[in-house]
Amino acid sequence: MKREGVLFVISAPSGAGKTTLCKEIIDKFPELRHSVSYTTRAPRAGEVHGRDYFFVGKEEFSRMVQAGEFAEWAEVHGNLYGTSLATLKECRSQGIDLILDIDCQGAQQLKGRFDGGVYIFILPPSIAELRRRLNGRSSDTEEVIERRIQNAAGEIKESRWYDYIIVNDEFPVALEQLKSVLVAEQCRSFRVIQGLSAQFNI
Amino acid sequence: MKREGVLFVISAPSGAGKTTLCKEIIDKFPELRHSVSYTTRAPRAGEVHGRDYFFVGKEEFSRMVQAGEFAEWAEVHGNLYGTSLATLKECRSQGIDLILDIDCQGAQQLKGRFDGGVYIFILPPSIAELRRRLNGRSSDTEEVIERRIQNAAGEIKESRWYDYIIVNDEFPVALEQLKSVLVAEQCRSFRVIQGLSAQFNI
Repeated sequence: MKREGVLFVISAPSGAGKTTLCKEIIDKFPELRHSVSYTTRAPRAGEVHGRDYFFVGKEEFSRMVQAGEFAEWAEVHGNLYGTSLATLKECRSQGIDLILDIDCQGAQQLKGRFDGGVYIFILPPSIAELRRRLNGRSSDTEEVIERRIQNAAGEIKESRWYDYIIVNDEFPVALEQLKSVLVAEQCRSFRVIQGLSAQFNI
Repeated sequence: MKREGVLFVISAPSGAGKTTLCKEIIDKFPELRHSVSYTTRAPRAGEVHGRDYFFVGKEEFSRMVQAGEFAEWAEVHGNLYGTSLATLKECRSQGIDLILDIDCQGAQQLKGRFDGGVYIFILPPSIAELRRRLNGRSSDTEEVIERRIQNAAGEIKESRWYDYIIVNDEFPVALEQLKSVLVAEQCRSFRVIQGLSAQFNI
């Protein structure tokens, strides 16, 4: 019997480096699939439907909520985001490991509704460093930065119930840690036994 | 506050490659300490008291058992082996990660008596491969090999209650997996929070 796919859920305050970490980890593990979320927000320049997001209207999103098609969904900065339950179930049963990059609200809902996920929180080394990183992005206004820092303080408190916390101080170290979590979770005995039980009579 | 030291307990059937994996992992993590066991067996050529084992007489070993000085002890192939409880407690409180290479009996005792250990089982890829490896060692007689294989079959059933199972098929892959388990466990949120709670108010 093949082992089930593992769902890795990654959250972080804006500016902690989650997007870059996820991108690098997917490059390193070609068999790892990145879950594509549904969203009502408008596509940004360069974003591709089906690769970055499934862009849907508010009506279609509501229909999916009503039909129970989302494993989790949340409103973030005024836009709706959701994860397809069918995709999660399909990957699990087909032995495909999936990486899901969602906010704390969504992650918490998911933890209640979907068994066996591995929850990883990326922390900045300090609030001061987070502020420095957000200031370094030319894209955000000072007001947006302040709101992001306020949000971060609240989100960091949520890190408690995650399985792992990775402090992204030096990027290569954080990447190595994230990689290690993925490899280690694939070695958890209840997963390995699924693949070996017949062979060793265990 | 500094985080507590992690106790990594490693077991494997004879011939699975545990000794080489442990040696390599200690070379890779200089801050990791290898726990030195007490034993009543006679030193082999090249073994050093205090480095390979603490070699003690049966009377001294019995005294330590009576005094509750062992976190676990077991008789293996007619010799007694034990792990000092004081050393485990000291390493934990001083934030020193410790690797402990013991058999299943000892590991199971320890799990009942010492909180927070991480249990790792090393498996050979198959019983046929285990036999091939044991035959390749010039040191063992056929009778010893047969006994080891019988023991292995029983020990492998014990792998169920370990936290992780590493199948040592290709050595570099197994080493990478063991390394990943060590790094990942250091990122477990309850451990990271011990070091960050004041800084982030979590």
